[in-house]
Amino acid sequence: MAMFLVSRRLSSDGSTTSFLEASLRHASCWRSFSTSFREERDTFGPIHVPSDKLWGAQTQRSLQNFDIGGERERMPEPIIRAFGVLKKCAAKVNIDYGLDPSIGKAIMQAAQEVAEGKLNDHFPLVVWQTGSGTQSNMNANEVIANRAAEILGHKRGDKFVHPNDHVNRSQSSNDTFPTVMHIAAAMEMNGRLVPNLKQLHTSLRSKSIEFKDIIKIGRTHTQDATPLTLGQEFSGYTTQVKYGIDRVTCTLPRMYQLAQGGTAVGTGLNTKKGFDVKIAAAVAEETKLPFVTAENKFEALAAHDAFVETSGALNTIAVSLMKIANDIRLLGSGPRCGLGELILPENEPGSSIMPGKVNPTQCEALTMVCAQVMGNHVGITVGGSNGHFELNVYKPMIASCLLHSLRLLGDASASFEKNCVRGIQANRERISKLLHESLMLVTSLNPKIGYDNAAAVAKKAHKEGSTLKDAALTLGVLTPEEFDKLVVPEKMIGPSD
Amino acid sequence: MAMFLVSRRLSSDGSTTSFLEASLRHASCWRSFSTSFREERDTFGPIHVPSDKLWGAQTQRSLQNFDIGGERERMPEPIIRAFGVLKKCAAKVNIDYGLDPSIGKAIMQAAQEVAEGKLNDHFPLVVWQTGSGTQSNMNANEVIANRAAEILGHKRGDKFVHPNDHVNRSQSSNDTFPTVMHIAAAMEMNGRLVPNLKQLHTSLRSKSIEFKDIIKIGRTHTQDATPLTLGQEFSGYTTQVKYGIDRVTCTLPRMYQLAQGGTAVGTGLNTKKGFDVKIAAAVAEETKLPFVTAENKFEALAAHDAFVETSGALNTIAVSLMKIANDIRLLGSGPRCGLGELILPENEPGSSIMPGKVNPTQCEALTMVCAQVMGNHVGITVGGSNGHFELNVYKPMIASCLLHSLRLLGDASASFEKNCVRGIQANRERISKLLHESLMLVTSLNPKIGYDNAAAVAKKAHKEGSTLKDAALTLGVLTPEEFDKLVVPEKMIGPSD
Amino acid sequence: MAMFLVSRRLSSDGSTTSFLEASLRHASCWRSFSTSFREERDTFGPIHVPSDKLWGAQTQRSLQNFDIGGERERMPEPIIRAFGVLKKCAAKVNIDYGLDPSIGKAIMQAAQEVAEGKLNDHFPLVVWQTGSGTQSNMNANEVIANRAAEILGHKRGDKFVHPNDHVNRSQSSNDTFPTVMHIAAAMEMNGRLVPNLKQLHTSLRSKSIEFKDIIKIGRTHTQDATPLTLGQEFSGYTTQVKYGIDRVTCTLPRMYQLAQGGTAVGTGLNTKKGFDVKIAAAVAEETKLPFVTAENKFEALAAHDAFVETSGALNTIAVSLMKIANDIRLLGSGPRCGLGELILPENEPGSSIMPGKVNPTQCEALTMVCAQVMGNHVGITVGGSNGHFELNVYKPMIASCLLHSLRLLGDASASFEKNCVRGIQANRERISKLLHESLMLVTSLNPKIGYDNAAAVAKKAHKEGSTLKDAALTLGVLTPEEFDKLVVPEKMIGPSD
Amino acid sequence: MAMFLVSRRLSSDGSTTSFLEASLRHASCWRSFSTSFREERDTFGPIHVPSDKLWGAQTQRSLQNFDIGGERERMPEPIIRAFGVLKKCAAKVNIDYGLDPSIGKAIMQAAQEVAEGKLNDHFPLVVWQTGSGTQSNMNANEVIANRAAEILGHKRGDKFVHPNDHVNRSQSSNDTFPTVMHIAAAMEMNGRLVPNLKQLHTSLRSKSIEFKDIIKIGRTHTQDATPLTLGQEFSGYTTQVKYGIDRVTCTLPRMYQLAQGGTAVGTGLNTKKGFDVKIAAAVAEETKLPFVTAENKFEALAAHDAFVETSGALNTIAVSLMKIANDIRLLGSGPRCGLGELILPENEPGSSIMPGKVNPTQCEALTMVCAQVMGNHVGITVGGSNGHFELNVYKPMIASCLLHSLRLLGDASASFEKNCVRGIQANRERISKLLHESLMLVTSLNPKIGYDNAAAVAKKAHKEGSTLKDAALTLGVLTPEEFDKLVVPEKMIGPSD
Repeated sequence: MAMFLVSRRLSSDGSTTSFLEASLRHASCWRSFSTSFREERDTFGPIHVPSDKLWGAQTQRSLQNFDIGGERERMPEPIIRAFGVLKKCAAKVNIDYGLDPSIGKAIMQAAQEVAEGKLNDHFPLVVWQTGSGTQSNMNANEVIANRAAEILGHKRGDKFVHPNDHVNRSQSSNDTFPTVMHIAAAMEMNGRLVPNLKQLHTSLRSKSIEFKDIIKIGRTHTQDATPLTLGQEFSGYTTQVKYGIDRVTCTLPRMYQLAQGGTAVGTGLNTKKGFDVKIAAAVAEETKLPFVTAENKFEALAAHDAFVETSGALNTIAVSLMKIANDIRLLGSGPRCGLGELILPENEPGSSIMPGKVNPTQCEALTMVCAQVMGNHVGITVGGSNGHFELNVYKPMIASCLLHSLRLLGDASASFEKNCVRGIQANRERISKLLHESLMLVTSLNPKIGYDNAAAVAKKAHKEGSTLKDAALTLGVLTPEEFDKLVVPEKMIGPSD
Repeated sequence: MAMFLVSRRLSSDGSTTSFLEASLRHASCWRSFSTSFREERDTFGPIHVPSDKLWGAQTQRSLQNFDIGGERERMPEPIIRAFGVLKKCAAKVNIDYGLDPSIGKAIMQAAQEVAEGKLNDHFPLVVWQTGSGTQSNMNANEVIANRAAEILGHKRGDKFVHPNDHVNRSQSSNDTFPTVMHIAAAMEMNGRLVPNLKQLHTSLRSKSIEFKDIIKIGRTHTQDATPLTLGQEFSGYTTQVKYGIDRVTCTLPRMYQLAQGGTAVGTGLNTKKGFDVKIAAAVAEETKLPFVTAENKFEALAAHDAFVETSGALNTIAVSLMKIANDIRLLGSGPRCGLGELILPENEPGSSIMPGKVNPTQCEALTMVCAQVMGNHVGITVGGSNGHFELNVYKPMIASCLLHSLRLLGDASASFEKNCVRGIQANRERISKLLHESLMLVTSLNPKIGYDNAAAVAKKAHKEGSTLKDAALTLGVLTPEEFDKLVVPEKMIGPSD
Repeated sequence: MAMFLVSRRLSSDGSTTSFLEASLRHASCWRSFSTSFREERDTFGPIHVPSDKLWGAQTQRSLQNFDIGGERERMPEPIIRAFGVLKKCAAKVNIDYGLDPSIGKAIMQAAQEVAEGKLNDHFPLVVWQTGSGTQSNMNANEVIANRAAEILGHKRGDKFVHPNDHVNRSQSSNDTFPTVMHIAAAMEMNGRLVPNLKQLHTSLRSKSIEFKDIIKIGRTHTQDATPLTLGQEFSGYTTQVKYGIDRVTCTLPRMYQLAQGGTAVGTGLNTKKGFDVKIAAAVAEETKLPFVTAENKFEALAAHDAFVETSGALNTIAVSLMKIANDIRLLGSGPRCGLGELILPENEPGSSIMPGKVNPTQCEALTMVCAQVMGNHVGITVGGSNGHFELNVYKPMIASCLLHSLRLLGDASASFEKNCVRGIQANRERISKLLHESLMLVTSLNPKIGYDNAAAVAKKAHKEGSTLKDAALTLGVLTPEEFDKLVVPEKMIGPSD
Repeated sequence: MAMFLVSRRLSSDGSTTSFLEASLRHASCWRSFSTSFREERDTFGPIHVPSDKLWGAQTQRSLQNFDIGGERERMPEPIIRAFGVLKKCAAKVNIDYGLDPSIGKAIMQAAQEVAEGKLNDHFPLVVWQTGSGTQSNMNANEVIANRAAEILGHKRGDKFVHPNDHVNRSQSSNDTFPTVMHIAAAMEMNGRLVPNLKQLHTSLRSKSIEFKDIIKIGRTHTQDATPLTLGQEFSGYTTQVKYGIDRVTCTLPRMYQLAQGGTAVGTGLNTKKGFDVKIAAAVAEETKLPFVTAENKFEALAAHDAFVETSGALNTIAVSLMKIANDIRLLGSGPRCGLGELILPENEPGSSIMPGKVNPTQCEALTMVCAQVMGNHVGITVGGSNGHFELNVYKPMIASCLLHSLRLLGDASASFEKNCVRGIQANRERISKLLHESLMLVTSLNPKIGYDNAAAVAKKAHKEGSTLKDAALTLGVLTPEEFDKLVVPEKMIGPSD
């Protein structure tokens, strides 16, 4: 049994220092193995594969030919799990179409293990491989074939269960990869993003109700404006998140369309009639999501417009969340020298010296996520627009970016809700102080004393730094009783009868 | 009557040449006037306004304070027209609420002229002004007030019809500007983009039908693959455009929501109850589009997520159209040294020397438009994410970018359909030649002679540059009759029974 | 003489309302002519051209085949002027290489008129045409040829001076268009952007000096932090702009490289040896900018990396200016309920009711410009990445976007400097009040009373809303004299000795 | 010793299926620990930390408060290593300023281990934390303090070496984090990206020389054009990469500026004079890169324009590489039905059936990387533009995106060079065939037989599908000898004498 070390080229023009070289060499060695190996084969001949891994020759070749980005660039786990789902369903349908049931069942069992994430360590390939995702499809085929063979009492590598003939039967990378892209994205949308946005929506709506009677200064152009309630302000955020859920949900009909059955170019060559419909039904049953076969398989392989569209919805949600998080951190700024209208939860020491210094760290994490989502959206857009003929070959990148955005937005929404929104308190004293210092309340004097007098009152107050009431009384345009009767913020927060 | 020249600062550090200075000075003089002027006033005092223009003091001040970008940066015409629609409707509803009917009707007549584009010359302000669009709202108020005054026999500038008290009654820039943004966008979507996409869809579908029996080589990874029909290939494009229409249509429910009635910060201060619903109904009647009052006015002023969302749909359409146009120009490449499967219409001399050199200029214009739309989308995203508190102040930029994208996509789709797609012909001879030279037809021999023999045939043909048939006969694995019976592309374009 | 109306197709599916149709029809009629016409010819045959225009058949054909975007999408004026510069220089060099001097001089005179913007009305083509810009090159050739013919006493249209053989001699659209792109961009960079940034830099530096002794609260995470001077804060902005000038200047070496001499594919076929060097020298002399011939003509035609690079510099400047403008508007927020540390110039009425409401409109215009520049950058990136083989065919879009960004950034920097920065005043009273209310000054007590006592002081002050001094005295940890001696913000604005 | 399981909230609205829930629960459990714990403390009180980890209370809190993205979102390794470099240098300089040398040396030793990547497992925090990177700075302080304590014979957690007072001495997160950002980026630029680009440049230049005599058809607008050599074509690519190296190198002067010494807001409060210069010198010595102290510390904390700028250079390089990779895959398309001018290396089985089907997988990986870099650039741009006051709080995201882009571009350039460019062969036979079939060679007949006759020849050949020679002879305009003498591609690849 051969000892094997995957050696990695380290580019260096000789001028860089030994420190640099050493640190980079260290960094790029993550794939080094020093273990025992077995021989596997493909049409290029024999190749060594680590004995403790289930993958085969094609996976190993990709591992060596695409040394790009290191371990953290591995194909996202939801894709691996979706391959498990798909291969299980394919075996099930293939049994209907004549696949040996004992082999079929072993494949189903092995695929289930992949779907549950139990074999993650056997999927070492990175996103930056062939643009069709073929190598990851073969990785799935090889791992499932070897595992199924083991289940049936055979040795890994003996191809008793064949990666292509059995596991990949009636399939092509060109239809499986877009299929797992859609399965993975739809599951993340339904299982992570939408529930977390709903929770955030609920929490914001609660705050909107909790704050419904707190009247505060409004701000337009970042300048003082007419009043509104803090509840009204939060109702805007609530609506943004509500529409965000609508937006991402709107894209699901096209996300639920599966390419499976299109095989190499969309025609379905080498499948049987009805295979596409049956496999979509099987995936739907397995995932409890309403997947259907794609209306047009040519579009489903050659374009990933559905991903660009969903990414557009995520981009809109990122825009909404950035606005909300920005407002909350600015309204919570202070404690003494900012706006100070909100009190944000303290989750960790802000500073070892200044009590009251609450850094709005959840807002910061969320807005960073939003910026990343906007960036990923451009990556997806560029990848989506560069397909040629019968196949878009930016598949792994498009999948990786969208799943990244879904994961980050979903997790950050949850973190923001739990660690920030839920605990927001109104600083009623501060809100009231600012409201009553504001000059714009003068607006309500117009009907009584006329625009010119009202303007004179406001100008005097602004110039002298006094209150409106002081200015009005000094100018003698109103009695104190009249002023108090007219200047009532409570009457300024809605249309009149 | 004063003679007046709006002088423009030309920044120069003295080191640039006189040529440069002269040419830039010339360029920036587009707003110079040499004409007679009248005096108008606002709270900042008197200011000269060109006598032949209907605008007033606030417009003039903006013109002088925002010398950015020159004439081509003027507020887009659909915004001006939408102001006409809105101000007409506002006057109508205001009459119901007590506005003097004679003044109200004059406003309606003047506003109608704005809606018809007859007063475009009186809207000189650029996009790059205050971020609320207040100055353009005042431009509309001033022009309509002066025009209405004239209709009633008064002089412009005498404020018989008042820009604020009459024309802007029950309104604020903060609700009018988002309202005209939505009106303008919805009209362009319904009146230009969607019809033009539908026409393009129809034309692509016709081609898909026309080409349904032409079998051609498929290409994946830009490499030869299994065959499909040219009709199938075009069906993919057709589906992309169909979904594009769905995508943009999906966003309309949020675009049909009007902010009008929210006034300064969303509360509706200074309007009467019901004003918001009535004005949305009036706009709906006027435009025959199903506008409604926004469910939450705070969201409608403080965010423009609806624009970010629609821009996301346009971005997806741009991605689709870029794929389609790229395929068409590559399939039409040649005439001798490219793929040459499509013959594109000749619309203008490609070259004075080479007949047959058809430059795919419509594809080029369209793909340039797509790149611009992707860029505008990022601009809208950045603007949309940067709102603060009760008002997003990137309104004119967001409006301008979306209307730009809508106009360009709409016009370019029409131009592409009319001047390219409609006239595409299949080069049947070339298509057939390539198909039959292709090595991948060997796939159909597998069941008869086995994978190993089939591979040997293909390898031999590839190595020697011969046909599959020659190779097969030379190897003696088939008779000519057997070969001809098995290698039938017509049987490779769908699943088997 | 024929009467001619360029009729425009209006797409409509019949379901849109007559109002919509009418308004769009009106909008798209900007190119309608009702005037007399002459016949011009090209290899496609005869075509009518408006008598009062200098353009010829190919321009007219483009006008009819590319009805995209309307008048405001015309090729940017700096491109037209650069064509004037280039064609003048080409004629000059061509005389050296044997062009009839009388024709050559007439071309130079006509081209000079184009360079001066006198013939702008004769350049009607939009950006959205062939991606090589061929049609605009022919527009320049046709206009200059007809004008030169007139200068020599001939009639327009008689081709006494030939657009191709004389005006375009030794040139191809494929080298002229990238050449004018570089000329136009370099002129805008040197003549507009850099001088205006320098002026902004000077103005910010003046403020930094003016404010050097004003100590204020610092803010990190938008929360109160240790103090700095307002001058230090402005020194950060000053440095950002200074580096911005460095960044854009860094890109000039590649912008000064001209493609001219590469002709159709970069080989220089149909030019003479040395033509490329001579024409770059002539352009350098004409513009007083150090243009040179491109080191590699293949790169210069097939890629526009120099534009992507410069756009990257503009993108960085946009990022800087957005930060600066955001800070200034937030520091100027108020007047009563914001931070209120800066007093921004009042340029126009902010509101008819509230004196003191200064909307930071120059900040708003500038940040909108920044968002647009970020968007244009993505458009340029997409266009730049999509070249094929010997020619990038996104040239007009790339040129248009970069010139748009240059113009907007240049103009907005000037407007912002003149109408905002120059007039910024510090609100010393407010700054001082916030500084002394701040809790973080407690930091300076640490060495004297220890961290625990200092923290107790700060916590007490925060909890009770009192001053640090009150809290310290109440806790009895310090005398008033000790407190005043220790808590000295002036000692907190730099490292210690 | 407590047993501890970090429990993770799983959002679910109850409607999702158990399969979904199970798979997501599994996915989010990566941080679960089932091990022994020790108690650590900070100002928030006690908290459990895994016994086998060196981190302390603040790291643990961040781990629990920011459950975003999972393990692959950990702070990039180059940042961790740069913290090692910085903390080592800080200890060294602090010894000069009075830090106890035994403690200082232990810190230096522990920091060296961090710099070498030996303690990577002790840095569990993700990018999506506080926007200042404070938590990662504290992670470094805590790990180094505990490790240094162990070196000195003390227990982890006893704070013999204090994270703040010793390891973070004279520092603030606000200056350390930007400092490590610059160190990490500069090291990746010098150690990975530039050397790999240089290797790619060398390889492309070799190909340019190897192919210098192979004359081929040129293509503009994707259509046949005049000829050039394959060497000339590759010289364009070579120049693009050369300029790319220039572009990224141009940005280094600003990347070499270190914020260290600015402390909390840029003033340098709590440092000693000269600390900033000394620490930059120490970092320079340690890394052998010419780091200097930042000219303006306020800019260095509040903005990350240097990162936006460098990202702009990477964006340009991505544009260049996308063009090159696209050309190479299209020129290598086929084997029978594409352009087929290049033969790309076969690195893995393209298909189990079609020999000769080489998928251009290296081009695909590279172009996917380019799309990702373009996307990251937008993320960085958005993050960079959203700083407020004295601190930009998108630091971890900006750092992560730029390091991602640097790593991917560096690795993918190396992979592309090694596995594709180096092995490219010209398909001379195919190139020659296409060249001689082309119609544009007719251009060389113009001087002899005139434009009209030449056009007639070309039109006849195009119409009939014949060769130019056949057409010319049939038309009787030339003898065979004349044709062969005139139509010589070798004379069409440069300017004439």
